[in-house]
Amino acid sequence: MASEEVPKTCKVILADTIAKKLLAEVRETLASVQGPESSKPTLVAFLANGDPAADQYAEWSKKTCEENGFHFDLRKVDKEDLEEAIVAANQDDSVDGILVYYPIWRNNKQQDRYIQETVALSKDVEGLCHTHLFNMYHNVRFLDPPTNQKKSILPCTPLAIVKTLEHLQIYNPILAYGNRLFGKTITVINRSEVNGRPLAALLANDGATVYSVDITGVQVFTRGSGIRAPRHQVHDKEGWELKDVLPLSDVVIAGVPSEDFKVPTELLREGAVCINFSSYRNFDGPAVKEKASIYVPSVGKVTIAVLLRNLVRLIANRPRPEGAADAAIEKARNEAFKDG
Amino acid sequence: MASEEVPKTCKVILADTIAKKLLAEVRETLASVQGPESSKPTLVAFLANGDPAADQYAEWSKKTCEENGFHFDLRKVDKEDLEEAIVAANQDDSVDGILVYYPIWRNNKQQDRYIQETVALSKDVEGLCHTHLFNMYHNVRFLDPPTNQKKSILPCTPLAIVKTLEHLQIYNPILAYGNRLFGKTITVINRSEVNGRPLAALLANDGATVYSVDITGVQVFTRGSGIRAPRHQVHDKEGWELKDVLPLSDVVIAGVPSEDFKVPTELLREGAVCINFSSYRNFDGPAVKEKASIYVPSVGKVTIAVLLRNLVRLIANRPRPEGAADAAIEKARNEAFKDG
Repeated sequence: MASEEVPKTCKVILADTIAKKLLAEVRETLASVQGPESSKPTLVAFLANGDPAADQYAEWSKKTCEENGFHFDLRKVDKEDLEEAIVAANQDDSVDGILVYYPIWRNNKQQDRYIQETVALSKDVEGLCHTHLFNMYHNVRFLDPPTNQKKSILPCTPLAIVKTLEHLQIYNPILAYGNRLFGKTITVINRSEVNGRPLAALLANDGATVYSVDITGVQVFTRGSGIRAPRHQVHDKEGWELKDVLPLSDVVIAGVPSEDFKVPTELLREGAVCINFSSYRNFDGPAVKEKASIYVPSVGKVTIAVLLRNLVRLIANRPRPEGAADAAIEKARNEAFKDG
Repeated sequence: MASEEVPKTCKVILADTIAKKLLAEVRETLASVQGPESSKPTLVAFLANGDPAADQYAEWSKKTCEENGFHFDLRKVDKEDLEEAIVAANQDDSVDGILVYYPIWRNNKQQDRYIQETVALSKDVEGLCHTHLFNMYHNVRFLDPPTNQKKSILPCTPLAIVKTLEHLQIYNPILAYGNRLFGKTITVINRSEVNGRPLAALLANDGATVYSVDITGVQVFTRGSGIRAPRHQVHDKEGWELKDVLPLSDVVIAGVPSEDFKVPTELLREGAVCINFSSYRNFDGPAVKEKASIYVPSVGKVTIAVLLRNLVRLIANRPRPEGAADAAIEKARNEAFKDG
């Protein structure tokens, strides 16, 4: 509605704001999952690549865990010892979730993939085991149909971006659940197997038209013709480039792992929503604030909050201990299954 | 988020749902504006054109008034006696608001304009007096700056559509007040002085890019370059037609007073939001439901709710009676001024 005080610039939303809201929910769910005398849940993180960016991320994760009632156990291991170390953690009852910093073998994605599959499904806090990935791509939410008591885990960064879009009200709650991005056009710049491709699939499954862009070209992810297909569809857009899709996009999500890449501001739609998930700044900050309606400069802290959210879900998924307070666990499980 | 049950069709939102919410607010505000022994507020409606559509609308208005604690006084008069009848109502302290069914002189808009100006500003429940219109076009919200105690009145149908867009969450509450349509592209088909043009201005003042379409062509209403201009700007789009703007539009609002006009469904963007404010069906219902994300087939009942909302604002704008419960009135006035 009309107002004398016209706002001056775009709204910058910090990851911290979104993360805090999620962490409050996580603490609440954790309290109801656990009995009063339970020990802190333990998240083991393996750092095997000597990447300083991962070191930084591990620092943040440790801090967030400790502030929210979790135990964070960082284990620096040699690449060659990683598989054995994961197997040991899989078998260790005191470990609740397992996290690995990728990439490990920079020039061998198959080998990283092998490591992802080594993590036990019941401790796969990152949602990277094949069963979790398969369910995500097929829009299947539970591990145990038709009982539907055990929730499938979604990968952290894509889910963090979904939670960010929910916070920004890009998901329209007036529309039916599962259809709340219908009518939205979204560009995702990055099509990695851990981030960009699952993200494009999640957004398409929720009704968006998603242009997925990487150096090999543009693909469009949709839920297919009409709004009745249960699983997203992917088509190559031969000859299309970033310059063709940016002007069409309500939302632009960039995650290019390079200092040199910048989204060309002049191609953005006036009032676009811009989200960066790279550890580099993929948007030209001052310029994008003159053009975007909302700018989220990073999502790292949201990703950590989602990591803990996934960990609490893994705990809620476990068979109930004998004599535990069944009603409380049931309630927590229902809450943990509410969405996402 | 992902879901096994993919929703099947677009969401149809009925005016009744939106109107009920508004009427509850209106009743609450009325109760706090009035003392306990006050009589029902009286809305006088003049019907001077013998239009059966207006007759129907008057029926609805009467019913809504009576159900919500208002007195509705329909006065059928001859065109030639209308001016005198309005002057008498202006001077009658028992009349709180005045409504006139337009058009009266079908081929003389100047004469209708003259009648609109005859209604006293303090009883202009439709917001059609020049002072109200001027304020709307200049994005000025109060009649008495800098005191800012008396709220300017907005025209009913445009405001009803704004309230509808708020209900549909097209206004993004994450953005600053006054900027909540930034990034949205909206087509308004109708540029009448009472409906389409004020609507385009209101939406542009809130940050949208608005294509205003009528038989004379297309104009674009924006808040100007950047988001700093206090008042919307209008530019002709030479040579543009409906077919050029529909595929660009997130929201399509049609109000063409003709049985023959239909918005071409094939030109709508997949997932567009479609709102009809004509008394004819400007959208092909079954087809639009296969393409739109949200479809609002009519807004008439919302318009009546807004009419009563405006009436309560006129009452709150009046000088306080001696000895009245000042605090209660102050509170109600503040509530009445909250938005819109």
